[in-house]
Amino acid sequence: MNATELHRDAIVIDGLIIAKWNRELFEDMRKGGLTAANCTVSVWENFQSTVDNIVEMNQLIEDNSDLLIKVRHTSDIRRAKEAGKTGIMLGFQNAHAFEDQLGYVQIFKDLGVGVVQMCYNTQNLIGTGCYERDGGLSDFGREVVAEMNRVGIMCDLSHVGSKTSQEVILESKKPVCYSHCLPSGLKEHPRNKSDEELRFIAGHGGFVGVTMFAPFLKNGIDSTIDDYVEAISYVIDIAGEDQVGIGTDFTQGHGQPFFEWLTHDKGYARRLTNFGKIVNPEGIRTVGEFPNLTEALLRHGFSEQLVRKVMGENWLRVLADVWGE
Amino acid sequence: MNATELHRDAIVIDGLIIAKWNRELFEDMRKGGLTAANCTVSVWENFQSTVDNIVEMNQLIEDNSDLLIKVRHTSDIRRAKEAGKTGIMLGFQNAHAFEDQLGYVQIFKDLGVGVVQMCYNTQNLIGTGCYERDGGLSDFGREVVAEMNRVGIMCDLSHVGSKTSQEVILESKKPVCYSHCLPSGLKEHPRNKSDEELRFIAGHGGFVGVTMFAPFLKNGIDSTIDDYVEAISYVIDIAGEDQVGIGTDFTQGHGQPFFEWLTHDKGYARRLTNFGKIVNPEGIRTVGEFPNLTEALLRHGFSEQLVRKVMGENWLRVLADVWGE
Repeated sequence: MNATELHRDAIVIDGLIIAKWNRELFEDMRKGGLTAANCTVSVWENFQSTVDNIVEMNQLIEDNSDLLIKVRHTSDIRRAKEAGKTGIMLGFQNAHAFEDQLGYVQIFKDLGVGVVQMCYNTQNLIGTGCYERDGGLSDFGREVVAEMNRVGIMCDLSHVGSKTSQEVILESKKPVCYSHCLPSGLKEHPRNKSDEELRFIAGHGGFVGVTMFAPFLKNGIDSTIDDYVEAISYVIDIAGEDQVGIGTDFTQGHGQPFFEWLTHDKGYARRLTNFGKIVNPEGIRTVGEFPNLTEALLRHGFSEQLVRKVMGENWLRVLADVWGE
Repeated sequence: MNATELHRDAIVIDGLIIAKWNRELFEDMRKGGLTAANCTVSVWENFQSTVDNIVEMNQLIEDNSDLLIKVRHTSDIRRAKEAGKTGIMLGFQNAHAFEDQLGYVQIFKDLGVGVVQMCYNTQNLIGTGCYERDGGLSDFGREVVAEMNRVGIMCDLSHVGSKTSQEVILESKKPVCYSHCLPSGLKEHPRNKSDEELRFIAGHGGFVGVTMFAPFLKNGIDSTIDDYVEAISYVIDIAGEDQVGIGTDFTQGHGQPFFEWLTHDKGYARRLTNFGKIVNPEGIRTVGEFPNLTEALLRHGFSEQLVRKVMGENWLRVLADVWGE
C-alpha cells in the first residue's frame, strides 16, 4: 500500500484543532482525509458562552452534514470513516466553563463534550496552567476529576502546569492525555514536556498527542514536516508506540485578534506569552496537507502498522477506554 | 465615664457580621450600640447572585432607614453615629463574585462594597483558602489586588491560606486585614492565626479584627466574654494597640442549613469542616449585648482610650486609609 492509499484507508484522528470553524475549513478536513478531530469550543468562556459556542458548532455540523458527523461515541468516528465524513468531537481547552458546578460536567457530557483540559495556562478552580507557578490540583479539582471519570470525559493536560498534571495523572482512574504537546528534550519551553513528564504519563496509562506548533519546535517557524516527524519519533521512543497520536493544534483561519485573546489571561488580562509569527511546518501548513504526514512517517521508516496506530487507531482505543465503551 | 456612658459615646464598629438580615437584627444592632458593621453579602455566590444580594440589602436599608444608613465612605459612619443609626458596610467573604473580570472590582466598589476577602476556605482564581493546601497568590490574584488598591476595597484575609495571605500582604500597597480571626497561640485551628502571622500583617501596616467564634476559642462553646477579652489582649500584645479591632462573626438568626452551606466547598460540594454546636460566648451571645464588651474590656484594665480604639476608632482610621479619604 503506498502512502496515498494508506492515508485513505487509515483512521486519521487529530487530537486538537482550534481552527476558525467554517465550511472552507471543513472542506479542508475532507481534503486532508481527517476521520475525526477534537475541536475546541471553549477556552476562556464561562458556562453560558460555552453553551453558545456549542449551539454554533451544532448548527455548523447540521449545515455541513454532507461533510461532518457529530461525535459522541467512538462508533460515530467509525461511522464517519465509512461515510467518508469527518467526525467532530467537542473539546475544551479549559475547565473554566464548568464554573463552580460539579453538575455541569454531566451537562457538557450530555451536550457531546468528550475531552476537557483542566487548566489553560493559568490558575483556575481546579489547578494551575503552565505559564505561572503551579500549586497543584485543588481539592475541588479532585472532585472534578472523579466526576469526569464517572461521566466519561477525558482529562487533557497539555497547557496544565507540571505539578497539577502529575497529580491529575495520579488522581484519575481513567487514562488522561497531553492531547497536543512537544518534548522539551528537543526544545526547552514552558509548554513542552520533559522526558520525565512523558515517561510519567505513559507509565500511568496516559496518552500523548504530538503537536506541530512551530514556535515550540526545534527549528521554530523554519520547521518542516520532517521536524514534526522527529518530534513524533522522540515521543514514541519514550512513551511507546501504543500511547502516542497526533494533536496538531491547527489554528487555520484565525487572525491576530484571536491570538491576542489566547495569549492574555482570561482573554483580556495580563499577557502570558507572545508567539511571534506563526507558520506551520512546511509540508503541513494546512489541514488539507494531512496526507503528507502519512507519507513523511513512512519515509522516515515507520511501518504501516505504526502509521495506522499513530495516525488514529491509538486515539480511537484510548477514547473508547475513557468514554467507557 | 462609666462603661455604659463610654459605650454610648464611642464609635463601635464590628468588622464582620454574617447574620440573617432582617428588622429584628437591625433593632438588635441599635440595642447593641453598633455604629457600623461590615455585613457579608457574598460567600459562594457568583457575580449576578451577589448583585441580587446587594439589591436585597439595599431594600432592607431603605425599609429600615429609621435604624440604618448605607456606608460608602467613613463620613457615612460618622453620620450614622450622629444620627444614632447603624452604618451598613457591604463586604464579601470571597472574591469569587469578581469571577474572571477585573472590571467587576470597580463595579462592586460603585455598588458600595468596601471589604472583600480574597478566598473563602478553598482555592479560587486568586489564591487558596485556609482549609486546603495553599499554593499562594496567583498572577491574576496580583492583578485583582492592584485593582482593589486602585478603587479602594480592603483585602480581607481571615479565611485565606497562610501562603496566599503572606503574598497579599506583600503585594498590597494599602493596608489589608484579618477582619475576624483568633490567635492560634490560644488554640490551634486551621482558621486561627499564628503569632508569626499576626506579627507579619501588623509589621506591614495591616489590621486584625478579633473574632469570638466559640469553636475557635480556647474554651470552645463554654467560653465567656472574658475568653474573648483574653484573645483581644493577646492580639494587641502582638499587633499593637492601633491595629486591632473587633470582628465578631455574629451569625445571628441563621439555622443549620446556612452552616451546611458555609461548610461545604462552593456551598454544596465536599464538606470542609464541621463546627459542631455553635454558641457565642456567655455575655455576648447576641448583637444586642455588645455593650458588655466595653464593660469587660474596662474590667480587664483597658484604658478608656484603648477601649475607644479597639471598639471602633482603629477600624475607622484604617478604612479611611484604604478607601482613600
